[in-house]
Amino acid sequence: MPEPDFGPWRARIESALDRALPAATEPPQRLHAAMRHATLGGGKRIRALLVYAAGTVFGAEPAALDAPAAAVELIHAYSLVHDDLPAMDDDDLRRGKPTVHVAFDEATAILAGDALQTLAFEILADAPFGDGVRVAMLRELSIATGARGMCGGQALDIDATGGAALSLAELERLHAMKTGALLRASVRLGAIAAGAADAQRPTLDRYAEALGLAFQIRDDLLDVESDSATLGKTAGKDAAQAKATFPALLGVVASRERLQGLAAKMSAALAPLGERAAALAALGREVVERRN
Amino acid sequence: MPEPDFGPWRARIESALDRALPAATEPPQRLHAAMRHATLGGGKRIRALLVYAAGTVFGAEPAALDAPAAAVELIHAYSLVHDDLPAMDDDDLRRGKPTVHVAFDEATAILAGDALQTLAFEILADAPFGDGVRVAMLRELSIATGARGMCGGQALDIDATGGAALSLAELERLHAMKTGALLRASVRLGAIAAGAADAQRPTLDRYAEALGLAFQIRDDLLDVESDSATLGKTAGKDAAQAKATFPALLGVVASRERLQGLAAKMSAALAPLGERAAALAALGREVVERRN
Repeated sequence: MPEPDFGPWRARIESALDRALPAATEPPQRLHAAMRHATLGGGKRIRALLVYAAGTVFGAEPAALDAPAAAVELIHAYSLVHDDLPAMDDDDLRRGKPTVHVAFDEATAILAGDALQTLAFEILADAPFGDGVRVAMLRELSIATGARGMCGGQALDIDATGGAALSLAELERLHAMKTGALLRASVRLGAIAAGAADAQRPTLDRYAEALGLAFQIRDDLLDVESDSATLGKTAGKDAAQAKATFPALLGVVASRERLQGLAAKMSAALAPLGERAAALAALGREVVERRN
Repeated sequence: MPEPDFGPWRARIESALDRALPAATEPPQRLHAAMRHATLGGGKRIRALLVYAAGTVFGAEPAALDAPAAAVELIHAYSLVHDDLPAMDDDDLRRGKPTVHVAFDEATAILAGDALQTLAFEILADAPFGDGVRVAMLRELSIATGARGMCGGQALDIDATGGAALSLAELERLHAMKTGALLRASVRLGAIAAGAADAQRPTLDRYAEALGLAFQIRDDLLDVESDSATLGKTAGKDAAQAKATFPALLGVVASRERLQGLAAKMSAALAPLGERAAALAALGREVVERRN
């Protein structure tokens, strides 16, 4: 079976983000330019692709999925801008470009991240769906983004850095919040936008939870095994910062085995959906095998 | 006519915020403690009071207004935490307490602001209203909060600080975004929650726009005329930072006259609503006469 071609969805999301973001010629220009720098022209767009892939399972047209796809990418972009700040991970390089506080300044980076978060919710509130679908998407995205999700996971990560060693269960919980929650929300938003029945949720959640954990283990392995040029961000930072990671806790070999186990879990979860889930399955493989 | 007693609404909003915020005993504890420090136990709650007062005009019960009242206060709290950061206004004192990055640390302050913003949208998505009302409130709040509203206004303010002099029109536009947008959204959210007809919007907007501008002029005058102990934040900062302000541009006397003109504008806007608007009128007076 040929691999699905994600090119058309990647083109869609770039165009949807470009339309959603304020023009850099419109004041406040510096803020808008920073928002565009943070969001456009880079990134794997895994979260957007998950929205399109999950929506497609339930028969949605790609055009109907642009708004939720843009919303999850805006939340992701906001989180990267703030995570890269000097007071957080202090990173200069992201997606092969200077980070926002380097290309602009710290105040602008804080505000750009703030405005990107807001824009994600504004886009969903304005999306071309019935009120009930919009409210359901807004609930999912806000829960996944906030203190019980991505932002709380980042706080746990900072608390853990350089501190007492985390257990495997604690590390998994941290990443289920920090990365997993938004990946799962991406899958759920696609399904909600497509009008999937609630009964489908456990199947998709099983897939999304395995994918989220696989994403993080792969990320940790790449930080150990790759270089900054391939990654488009600084390699080897986890060890330098004494971060809790899967390779540090399990070793590289066991981390790779764990990754293969999660790949099998994704396949099993998607099996009942058959051919309709081909794109979700391919994204699972991409997450497990990605080089950056 | 006796002044309305805002005590019961103030008690309601404190309790609504306390319930909405995650417990400081629940992990990540440091993040949750910072969110609570930023939000509880201080503040004039003008935005929440505007929600209750506007809702009351159209017959809503206070209990039905707790969610939008909490949402606007959470957005306000988030904006203060980020505005106080070293890279922004670099302020150590807020509401008579150490600012969040002083009491905790910078990374926690960035994340706490982020999570407070998210929580505002989560609360509205979960609020006990029909889907259409929730979507309408979410649209209003997101537009008022983002790059076209509060956050964009803060960016304009930073761009203007120490730079070329602003014209009066530019200064008014800056504050219409930075402070005015959220104050106006507070009034609109109360009206939307109460099921007010769209036809009422122009009346309320005229009031809210005068109130927003009056709020800022009063703020600027207090910075010149008051001391840090009374303000609960650092006084005299605007001149020290060469900020564009109304007293700097118009002089103190003309700024006071402008404030009185706005008070008259508020009264005129509310006149058609009669006695039902007594609380909105009293809030207008409070904004014009406040000492901190």
